[in-house]
Amino acid sequence: MDYKYASLKLHKSLKGKIEMCARVSIESTDDLSTVYSPGVSEPCLEIEKEPNLSYVYTRRHNTIAVITDGSAVLGLGNIGPEASMPVMEGKAALFKLLGDVDAIPLSLKTQDTDTIVTIIESLSSSFGGINLEDISAPRCFEIEAQLKKRCDIPIFHDDQHGTAIVVLAGVINALQVVNKAIGNIKIVVNGIGSAGTAITEFLLDYGATNIILCDKDGIISRDDPSLSKPHMKLAKRTNHNLLHGTLSDAVKDADLFIGVSVPGCLSKEDVQAMQHNAIVLPLANPKPEIDYDVAKAAGAKVIGTGLSNYPNQINNLLAFPGVFRGALDARASDINRPMMIAAAKAIAACVPNDQLSADFIIPAPLNKAVHQHVASAVEAKAIETGVAKNGHIKDALREASE
Amino acid sequence: MDYKYASLKLHKSLKGKIEMCARVSIESTDDLSTVYSPGVSEPCLEIEKEPNLSYVYTRRHNTIAVITDGSAVLGLGNIGPEASMPVMEGKAALFKLLGDVDAIPLSLKTQDTDTIVTIIESLSSSFGGINLEDISAPRCFEIEAQLKKRCDIPIFHDDQHGTAIVVLAGVINALQVVNKAIGNIKIVVNGIGSAGTAITEFLLDYGATNIILCDKDGIISRDDPSLSKPHMKLAKRTNHNLLHGTLSDAVKDADLFIGVSVPGCLSKEDVQAMQHNAIVLPLANPKPEIDYDVAKAAGAKVIGTGLSNYPNQINNLLAFPGVFRGALDARASDINRPMMIAAAKAIAACVPNDQLSADFIIPAPLNKAVHQHVASAVEAKAIETGVAKNGHIKDALREASE
Repeated sequence: MDYKYASLKLHKSLKGKIEMCARVSIESTDDLSTVYSPGVSEPCLEIEKEPNLSYVYTRRHNTIAVITDGSAVLGLGNIGPEASMPVMEGKAALFKLLGDVDAIPLSLKTQDTDTIVTIIESLSSSFGGINLEDISAPRCFEIEAQLKKRCDIPIFHDDQHGTAIVVLAGVINALQVVNKAIGNIKIVVNGIGSAGTAITEFLLDYGATNIILCDKDGIISRDDPSLSKPHMKLAKRTNHNLLHGTLSDAVKDADLFIGVSVPGCLSKEDVQAMQHNAIVLPLANPKPEIDYDVAKAAGAKVIGTGLSNYPNQINNLLAFPGVFRGALDARASDINRPMMIAAAKAIAACVPNDQLSADFIIPAPLNKAVHQHVASAVEAKAIETGVAKNGHIKDALREASE
Repeated sequence: MDYKYASLKLHKSLKGKIEMCARVSIESTDDLSTVYSPGVSEPCLEIEKEPNLSYVYTRRHNTIAVITDGSAVLGLGNIGPEASMPVMEGKAALFKLLGDVDAIPLSLKTQDTDTIVTIIESLSSSFGGINLEDISAPRCFEIEAQLKKRCDIPIFHDDQHGTAIVVLAGVINALQVVNKAIGNIKIVVNGIGSAGTAITEFLLDYGATNIILCDKDGIISRDDPSLSKPHMKLAKRTNHNLLHGTLSDAVKDADLFIGVSVPGCLSKEDVQAMQHNAIVLPLANPKPEIDYDVAKAAGAKVIGTGLSNYPNQINNLLAFPGVFRGALDARASDINRPMMIAAAKAIAACVPNDQLSADFIIPAPLNKAVHQHVASAVEAKAIETGVAKNGHIKDALREASE
C-alpha cells in the first residue's frame, strides 16, 4: 500500500482527524438558561468553593492535553509546531477510539524549557492529565521533572514511558519464551535518548542486574568524566565491570538487545555473537537497527520491531490509551513507576499462555480488550500506591450537597 | 424555573458539556498506517515545507481556543481557572451548536499579563483563532493588543467586542424605531470597563458625535488629569463640552442610555429627564441598572436588557458563533473593526422591517439563520479589507501538488 499518497489524500478529505462535539442540546431559552447564563453560575460557585468539584461539573475528569513543541516528531526531527499537529491529532483520535479519553492536541511555538514548563503548569487546571509528546532529550527530562513537582495531575512523557512500558511487556513475554530470568541475563540498550533512558530505568526496576548502554560512540561507562549528567546517572547503575568498546563489543554474549537508535547499526555478526536464544528488539522506525530477516537468519530466537508487517510489533499505542484511562478513572495525581510497570504486566498478560511463542509476544494494538486490561491494572495500582484522589472528590461532593 | 437546582443537576449528569470526537475510524492495521505511523509523516512534511497547509491537513481551519484566566467571570468576578470552566465549556458547546466551530476551552492558572501573552502566542500555531473570555479590565486591553501584534490569527475579546457588536445591532434598530440618526443624538454610556470601552469605540466609528461616559464617580472629562490612560483616551473623543457631574446630570436630555455597570443605578426620574422616545439599554446582568417595568413606566420608548424574560435581550450569543465562523471561512488573519461592524449590521438586518418595533429590535439568539448571516457578512468584509488568507492556502496547496 502506498501510504504516502493514501495518507495525504485521506488527510485532505478528512479536514482534521478530531473535532469538538457538544454533549448537550440547546433548543430553548430554558435550555440556554440552564446550560449557560444565568444557570451556569451555580456549578461555577460550587467549584470556586471546592476546586475538586471541577471533576464533577466539567469534562476535566475525562480530558487530557497532548502537548508537543515539535522538536522530536516521529523520525522526522525538529519540524516545528504546525507540522507536528497531524501526529498529535492522530494520537488524540486514538486516545478516543481506544481509551474513550478526550485528548486536546496542543503544539507550542516555543522550545524554551522554562517557558514550556510555565505554559503547561498554567494549563494544568483545565485538564485531568498531560501527555507530553515528541519533545527532544534532554529537555524532556527537565520539563517532565519540573511539571511533576508543580502539578497535581499526571504528567506522562509517552516517548519515554509509553515506549518503556511496551518494551518491558515484550521483554516479560520474550523471557518466558526463552525461559530465562531478568536477573540472570545480559542486556544491551543502544541509544540513550528519551526512550533508551526510560527503558533502562524500567528494566532496572524490574530486576535487571547486567545492562550495558551504548550511544553512537559505543559503550558508556561511569569512569568517563565527559558523560552528560543524565548519562552519568544511568552509567552508575549499569556496566558494573566498566567495559569500554563498540556496540559489537557490548553485544557479545548478550541475551537481549534493545535498539532505540539508528537504522542498520546492528550486524548479522553481532547477533551471531549473542547468547543462544537471543532476544533482539531493533525498534528504530521505519528502518530498524537490523532487518527482521537478517536477525532471524543470524539465529535470534525472538525478534520484535516497530513495524506492523512483521511479528511482534512493539507499538506505543498499546500503552497510552489504557494508562490514561486508568489514571483518569482513579483521578490519579500522578502516573508513577508502579502504575507503569503494572501496565506493562497487563499488556504482557494479554497474550494467552497457550499462544505465547517467539512470534507472538505482544498483543495487537487495536484490540480494545487490551486497553481495558491496562486501564484496570493502572487504576488498581493508583489506589494501591495512594495517588488515587477519587475519594477526595466524593467527599467534596457529599459536603457540597449537605 | 429554578435554574440553580436544575443547572447543578444537569451539570452533574452531563459529565461535561463537550467532548473530543474522532472524525476517522481506525479498525485495521492499514487504517492505522494511514492515519498514524508511518503514513502521518506525509502531511507533517508537507506542513513543514509550507505552514499554511496546516489549514488543509489538520483541524486548524475550524478550531479556536476559548481562553480565560478566570478573573472576571460573568457577574461572579475573580473566581479562578477551575471555577470558570463551566462557562468556557458552555461557550464551546454554543460555538459548535450555532456556528459549527470547534472551540477548545482553556482556563489559565495565571493572571500575569505578560505570562498570558506568552502562553497564548505559543499556543497560536495550534488554532485558527483565539476567543479571549472573561479577562478583567484593564489587563484585557493590553493582552489583546499584544497578541494582535504577535499572532497571525484572529484575536477577539468577546466581553469587549462581542458585547459591542450586539449593542450596536440593537442601537441600529432602536434608532429606526424612534426615527433618529446616530449623528444627532446624545448618548450616555455608564460603566467604562471592557464592554463600555468597546461599545463607545464602536458607536464613534458608527457615527456618534455626542457621547458622555460615566464611571462610578460620575461623568469623566478630559480636563481631569487623574484619569487612567484608557479612560483619557476615551475622554478625548467624548464629552466635548467638558461636562462634570453625576450620572443623573449626564442623562438629562439624552436620547440613548447604555448601562454596563451595576444594578439599580438609573432611577425613574433619570429616565423621565431623557429626551422623548428615549432608548434605554440597562445591560447589567442578572439585575439591570433599572427594571424594565420601571423604565417603561417612566416613558422609555425602547428598552433592551440582558434578560431573556423581557423583550429585546441584548445577548453576546448573537455575535460570537457567526463572527468566528466567518473569520475561519475566510482564514482571516484578524477580526478587524469593519468585520465587527458588518456583524452588527447583519444581526440588525435579521429583524425584518415589517416586524421591527419597540419590542422587537434584536433577533432570537438560538435562530441559526442569524449566525449564518453574520458569518457571511464577516467573511465578505474580511475579503474586502484584505485580511482573508484563503488564497494563500489555495496557492500553497497548488504549489505542493505540482
